[in-house]
Amino acid sequence: MNHSPDAYRDLERRFRRLSLLNEARGLLGWDWATMMPEASAESRAETVAELGLIAHDMMTDPALTDLLATAEDTAAALDPWQRANLGEMRRVWRHANAVPARLVEALSRAGSACEMTWRAARPADDFKALAPRLREVIALVREQAAAKADALDCAPYDALLDQYEPGGRSDEIEAIFDDLAEFLPAFTDAVLERQAAEAPVLPLDGPFPIDRQRALSERLMKAAGFPFDQGRLDVSLHPFSGGTPDDLRITTRYDEADFTSAVMAVLHETGHALYERGLPRAWRHQPVGEARGMSVHESQSLLMEMQACRSAEFIGFAAPLMRDAFGRDGPAWRADNLARLYTRVGRGLIRVDADEVTYPTHVILRYRLERRILAGDLQVDDLPGAWREAMAELVGVTPEDDRDGCMQDIHWMDGTFGYFPTYTLGAMMAAQLFDAARRAEPDVMPGLARGDFAPLLGWLRTNVHELGSSLTTAELLTQATGRPLDPEIYKRHLATRYLG
Amino acid sequence: MNHSPDAYRDLERRFRRLSLLNEARGLLGWDWATMMPEASAESRAETVAELGLIAHDMMTDPALTDLLATAEDTAAALDPWQRANLGEMRRVWRHANAVPARLVEALSRAGSACEMTWRAARPADDFKALAPRLREVIALVREQAAAKADALDCAPYDALLDQYEPGGRSDEIEAIFDDLAEFLPAFTDAVLERQAAEAPVLPLDGPFPIDRQRALSERLMKAAGFPFDQGRLDVSLHPFSGGTPDDLRITTRYDEADFTSAVMAVLHETGHALYERGLPRAWRHQPVGEARGMSVHESQSLLMEMQACRSAEFIGFAAPLMRDAFGRDGPAWRADNLARLYTRVGRGLIRVDADEVTYPTHVILRYRLERRILAGDLQVDDLPGAWREAMAELVGVTPEDDRDGCMQDIHWMDGTFGYFPTYTLGAMMAAQLFDAARRAEPDVMPGLARGDFAPLLGWLRTNVHELGSSLTTAELLTQATGRPLDPEIYKRHLATRYLG
Repeated sequence: MNHSPDAYRDLERRFRRLSLLNEARGLLGWDWATMMPEASAESRAETVAELGLIAHDMMTDPALTDLLATAEDTAAALDPWQRANLGEMRRVWRHANAVPARLVEALSRAGSACEMTWRAARPADDFKALAPRLREVIALVREQAAAKADALDCAPYDALLDQYEPGGRSDEIEAIFDDLAEFLPAFTDAVLERQAAEAPVLPLDGPFPIDRQRALSERLMKAAGFPFDQGRLDVSLHPFSGGTPDDLRITTRYDEADFTSAVMAVLHETGHALYERGLPRAWRHQPVGEARGMSVHESQSLLMEMQACRSAEFIGFAAPLMRDAFGRDGPAWRADNLARLYTRVGRGLIRVDADEVTYPTHVILRYRLERRILAGDLQVDDLPGAWREAMAELVGVTPEDDRDGCMQDIHWMDGTFGYFPTYTLGAMMAAQLFDAARRAEPDVMPGLARGDFAPLLGWLRTNVHELGSSLTTAELLTQATGRPLDPEIYKRHLATRYLG
Repeated sequence: MNHSPDAYRDLERRFRRLSLLNEARGLLGWDWATMMPEASAESRAETVAELGLIAHDMMTDPALTDLLATAEDTAAALDPWQRANLGEMRRVWRHANAVPARLVEALSRAGSACEMTWRAARPADDFKALAPRLREVIALVREQAAAKADALDCAPYDALLDQYEPGGRSDEIEAIFDDLAEFLPAFTDAVLERQAAEAPVLPLDGPFPIDRQRALSERLMKAAGFPFDQGRLDVSLHPFSGGTPDDLRITTRYDEADFTSAVMAVLHETGHALYERGLPRAWRHQPVGEARGMSVHESQSLLMEMQACRSAEFIGFAAPLMRDAFGRDGPAWRADNLARLYTRVGRGLIRVDADEVTYPTHVILRYRLERRILAGDLQVDDLPGAWREAMAELVGVTPEDDRDGCMQDIHWMDGTFGYFPTYTLGAMMAAQLFDAARRAEPDVMPGLARGDFAPLLGWLRTNVHELGSSLTTAELLTQATGRPLDPEIYKRHLATRYLG
């Protein structure tokens, strides 16, 4: 008698429950960032942590271990998607079972404490106040990395990377980032020189009422295919995409003086949301039905924002809507000026404000520093100095304080190490996927020019979204574009747009 | 070696997890009613149902049964609150374990289906479409009642009642309701005669902009002691109080033509919220730290709304705020006219629109009908007729259709039987508690006149809120007011306010 199908079915039932638990946590996270009264944070943290513990208990249940082994022993009876699903189950099982519950809890607690300290210390530019907390987080993250490296049989950094970018390898990233770090400074010089020689970009004078900005954002989201019958747009301190594939919750923040960044943030998050939306329905609530990883996720937001929506074609469509939204007109509101506004380049201190060209240098800096931190080669006390040095070298500017230096990002504060590379890997994938989509679907660019994303979305659905986690990132990219990640396509995109 | 403290501690850990799970469900329920896009309902229902199943699995875990028995065997080692906590654990355990999982799920499914049908059938006045679904729900509820009656060793109706009103007994309710059913029709006649003889109440002419209504509501909530640093006011189809004691979420609905009902609904829900807020902190997330039951809960909302906020004293405080809110003035906006407006009596078809005097007749009608339904003495096909007859007898008006007749409430549709009595029990307790508070704290009424709820709230905290579920409802009431539930105090309140 073959027990495998039974074991596999039981696994599906358990992972479905885990997925629903995670969706509940996700919705509570959205609420936290958008709706929750501030003083309710402590109590909410308890609720969310307990849901996490329930999930952890389920993941470390010895019965689950047995079921996985049984199902794997007779995986031949499964179809390819089921097998891929089983593989993904094993992957998340490995991560969950690599680390003792004690460490999971300590890291969660230390991360919360450090994040709370950071929220006060950053505006006060008080790195001294932050340092002890950050040291504590880093000590625990190193412990976590060692434990996961053991379980996954890879380098400690790669073990953390694998949480966000399954199968990601730092030796491959290293080579790509070294190449970019070599290419970008001179390229940026050339772009800055070129932009300085052109007529100045005309500024858009505000104020731009928030309700008009929201209406314009929603109009553009609709064009991009965001389903408002199963989604919302709200406000939070930092834009994000949350919720579930059936209940997409994206956020932005508005600035009365400038509508352009809110609108573009919304389109970026719409890219994330449409990926979730397009995941394979038949595998909803199963690991294989989830997004492939954070690089692919970021590729979908950046494809939407950088490739599609900053194109001259889309801005040609959006320009009259922008004029209508605010009842404005004149040369500054012409599509060509708006397009130049949306492709301005400048060296700056802040990653989240960086343009398409300089952004990767911010990421490479963080990647290099976090590798040294994890290796024990860079101590917390030396971080501010190392940050300044790396900024000067990679980005070409130096922060005067730590607020706009090594304290600007939340990631390390709550223990997120190994995440940063996915931003730039995603940007490169976005260029490569968009390039392939344009070749395959001649109507992609004409579509954008008339505000019709259907040709683009159709290709993305088939070649990315509907694949879920059935392929590795590398397989997905190769199948969709004919080759593995190729930095030359990304460089070509930059050259065409900024020096073309 | 005495294992009891260990067993008890383990129980506390398990029930804490259950409480946090329920809070997560509660927050998702709030989101459902206020924020969720409509087409996301089906998916959300799955998430909420799964959290319920996780809780059910925890409650029916054989290990929990063993722990309860062990802890009870050596309960002498516990302090009184711990013992009360153990008693409450057993009570919820009994309810959860009385009903097989199959029935729990069938009832949840049938309730959802019936509610969905009802949402369409009610506006169409199509009882025929509803009947088969309702029949299905009732069959399952009767099965549930029989199973719980068995486990709780009481009558089937009382077993359902016990879910909402722990320890409630229908023979006691019967006597109280018979008395009220005798008293109210003649009393209502007298009030109507009296109000008809007076000068007409001056109407308030709208429109009243929603944002002003909201600002006024929030101003009055603040006066009543609602903590906005740990709470919110939002909009939903029907007003409710949700969230958690650390994150109070109340809702209302606005009508541009009439602000008075939105404002009063807000104060009603604030009463519920302040009860949750005042529950014993030391017993947070334990059964004994929860609200005593729905009668006491409703007593807190009705004490706030009916006793405190419809008093001449409070309306004297609120009247200038109302005038300011809408920039209005004149005789209609004087406190005496507003007070009369807020105590108008009339016989109507709809329970939720009913005034303080006629409301109990709507409840008694439902109580009598649901007892007959459960006993098998009233069939679904005969419900519309029975409803009309009972309305004529108890309320004194007869609906022309089922939309405003037996289809007006959601309760039976989703399987909620045994809940209705708590509305009127709560109204009576509210009168009795308010009477005791006024006697004990002479500053209660002067406080309301200056918008200061502290004297009232202080008494409620000590005598109701902070007791959680450490006493039975009857004990709580007796300890707070010196006697068990006494309908005469309620009648005296009505007589003083409406015929005084």
